[in-house]
Amino acid sequence: MKSYRQLSKSELEKLYQQTLQDYEEAKGKGLKLDMSRGKPSASQLDMGMDMLDALNSTSDMIAENGMDCRNYGGLDGIPEAKKLMGDMMGVTADQVIVCGNASLTIMYDMISRSYTHGVMGEKPWCKLNKVKFLCPCPGYDRHFAITEHFGIEMINIPMLETGPDMDLVEKYVNHDESVKGIWCVPKYSNPLGTSYSDETVKRFAALKPAAKDFRIYWDNAYAIHHLYEEPERQDEILEILSECEKAGNPNLVFEFCSTSKVSFAGAGISALASSAENLAWIKKSMTIQTIGSNKLNQLLHVRYFKDIEGVKKHMKKHAEQLRPKFEAVLDVLERELGGLEIGSWTKPNGGYFISFNALDGCAKKIVAKCKEAGVVLTGAGATYPYKNDPKDSNIRIAPSFPTPEEMAAATDIFVICVKLVSLEKLMEEVLAA
Amino acid sequence: MKSYRQLSKSELEKLYQQTLQDYEEAKGKGLKLDMSRGKPSASQLDMGMDMLDALNSTSDMIAENGMDCRNYGGLDGIPEAKKLMGDMMGVTADQVIVCGNASLTIMYDMISRSYTHGVMGEKPWCKLNKVKFLCPCPGYDRHFAITEHFGIEMINIPMLETGPDMDLVEKYVNHDESVKGIWCVPKYSNPLGTSYSDETVKRFAALKPAAKDFRIYWDNAYAIHHLYEEPERQDEILEILSECEKAGNPNLVFEFCSTSKVSFAGAGISALASSAENLAWIKKSMTIQTIGSNKLNQLLHVRYFKDIEGVKKHMKKHAEQLRPKFEAVLDVLERELGGLEIGSWTKPNGGYFISFNALDGCAKKIVAKCKEAGVVLTGAGATYPYKNDPKDSNIRIAPSFPTPEEMAAATDIFVICVKLVSLEKLMEEVLAA
Repeated sequence: MKSYRQLSKSELEKLYQQTLQDYEEAKGKGLKLDMSRGKPSASQLDMGMDMLDALNSTSDMIAENGMDCRNYGGLDGIPEAKKLMGDMMGVTADQVIVCGNASLTIMYDMISRSYTHGVMGEKPWCKLNKVKFLCPCPGYDRHFAITEHFGIEMINIPMLETGPDMDLVEKYVNHDESVKGIWCVPKYSNPLGTSYSDETVKRFAALKPAAKDFRIYWDNAYAIHHLYEEPERQDEILEILSECEKAGNPNLVFEFCSTSKVSFAGAGISALASSAENLAWIKKSMTIQTIGSNKLNQLLHVRYFKDIEGVKKHMKKHAEQLRPKFEAVLDVLERELGGLEIGSWTKPNGGYFISFNALDGCAKKIVAKCKEAGVVLTGAGATYPYKNDPKDSNIRIAPSFPTPEEMAAATDIFVICVKLVSLEKLMEEVLAA
Repeated sequence: MKSYRQLSKSELEKLYQQTLQDYEEAKGKGLKLDMSRGKPSASQLDMGMDMLDALNSTSDMIAENGMDCRNYGGLDGIPEAKKLMGDMMGVTADQVIVCGNASLTIMYDMISRSYTHGVMGEKPWCKLNKVKFLCPCPGYDRHFAITEHFGIEMINIPMLETGPDMDLVEKYVNHDESVKGIWCVPKYSNPLGTSYSDETVKRFAALKPAAKDFRIYWDNAYAIHHLYEEPERQDEILEILSECEKAGNPNLVFEFCSTSKVSFAGAGISALASSAENLAWIKKSMTIQTIGSNKLNQLLHVRYFKDIEGVKKHMKKHAEQLRPKFEAVLDVLERELGGLEIGSWTKPNGGYFISFNALDGCAKKIVAKCKEAGVVLTGAGATYPYKNDPKDSNIRIAPSFPTPEEMAAATDIFVICVKLVSLEKLMEEVLAA
């Protein structure tokens, strides 16, 4: 297709009128579609229903270590759940604490704990004048919401194809003592769907932080969330804890994962992985906060999935549900926007999102136009700290919840909105020239 | 029996030798018994096993409000769980937020939230030079551990038969702006097993705190944990939220409860009740911390218990298990120590504990002697802030976990230790006279 950049003023105007008509027609259909959140669909959840039969009134409720899963105790989780969650992250069971139903809550707690009590003997952040976090972006809005909630200054770090811009990361981390952390989604990152290169992981492990209490918040949310079965279409990243150890930085990382998008969203189990020293420090305050997480739910997961192979098998079924939805979006984008030079997008091998970059200054308007036509997208800007995308360009598309047909219909509307808003911008540029 | 106070020096010595022999014999039995923690027994947990059949692969997973319990969402819980937990506390569903597997964690979070962000617009506690909490004692060690963890100064408030010494509570709360809270277990209190009188509750509701951000932490942990069926042997307390509202103090209370000692310890659901204004403030930060608690577990509880009547019926079965254990302890105490004037103890109608007061300065020694003979008790002092019982007198007995026979055997050893240590003290007194 001919790039919109090459159109004359009259061609632009003609196309605009035509697109406006398409938009009005689309609006007339009265659709109501939601592409805003990375929620599993009902059919994905249906696939896990037999999990509910994995424990019943005749089940043995004793964990491998002899602990009655129905009673108090077990601060860091039952051994078999530690093993399962460790395998998900590629670490050993003794590097793991199994937690409640959301890794988000572990991350909040880690920030909160550092704020109130300080990291391993360092000054509590609440006693410091300035605490900063590096925020690779576009990134995950709920990460940024936590740091903002604690008044932590957020610094944008551009995401490259290899992961965060490591030159910038090194510059800040190694020279600014007020930089205490960085948010990372290293695999199938939210919202880009891209994964960190080996060199990026190695450069993370080799950081020489100015602050003793600097930590990498490694949110490995999509560790096993491949869309394709072919090995060459499965992203793999280096295991960060062992890289840190090799680099002489064993305490550098807090890693997080969960089964929220494996078993049931909001009713899964989550886990934290870190060095022995970090875990000992964390457990010292956890023991004040809880007697232990829900061990019945841990047992339920282990009895159902058996081991990591069971989890992977289950994830293939998820992939079968998700793949057509991603492809429906990508097909429409390619067919309708390919070559027009009014947007670019990622083609992820896994995860829950596609990231779309519109022409600068167009994202908010596109999201608003979509909403008017019945298609809800994640708010423009949400993928940046303070909800402020400096270029007003990035839009996160979450294809998981609707059906493939709904996704295609929603994307049809999306591309019309992209065209419409882009044409308005280009016409303004022509007028201004 | 003749009071030890009336014994002559030679009688004391003779009795001491005899008791020492009893103690050595008891030690020789090589018992291993644990009366230290308020844990349900395996047979109590067995009673709840059919709960695990209440959800299976064919279950309808949709809550009353149409929410899919398997997916994200529902920050404050599903309506039917809010109703159930509300009924447990005697409040309405709209006064309730359903949380995770432990009310302890809600309490920690409330303190942490007040510390990091301040209560409803007031200054965060981390920015204040001094924050104090009133601690009715003997009380619950995990409450005191939370406040100690946050560097909050704890002030002992003596427990009377009617509840905390309200003259003292009013003096502190109404005149000291640095007093920000008070820990209360109003019903079948831990460890006394006594309940607050109506007048005490009314005086709580009528407090005129010097600090705008003062709150009563009302840990209604044993709201439905009666040991007896006869109404005259069931403690009932006034409902605090409505009393506060009547007194013009609607925001004064955070109330907590859980099903930890109803369904499964560590795998139950917990809840927070408070005023609309307090709940709105809490939800503002909860929404940063979590997408919502485990709704599958909420649904499981509601489907199994149906309603509060179902819960009460289930609690009668618990009482049948617990009553003989409490009575085994009380029988031995009465038989062996009645009239000796070397100890007093509570005779609770519910809850999980019996509280024993030894002669001043004897508690630590008694606990150590018991340990030596294979009987583990809660550490002496644990029922006081900073683990410091000024009189070294209080010992908490937790009869729930062992069998009635084991409880009787353990108490047999306990009373020998009480006698032995008391005789040592009395002999010293005679020598010093």
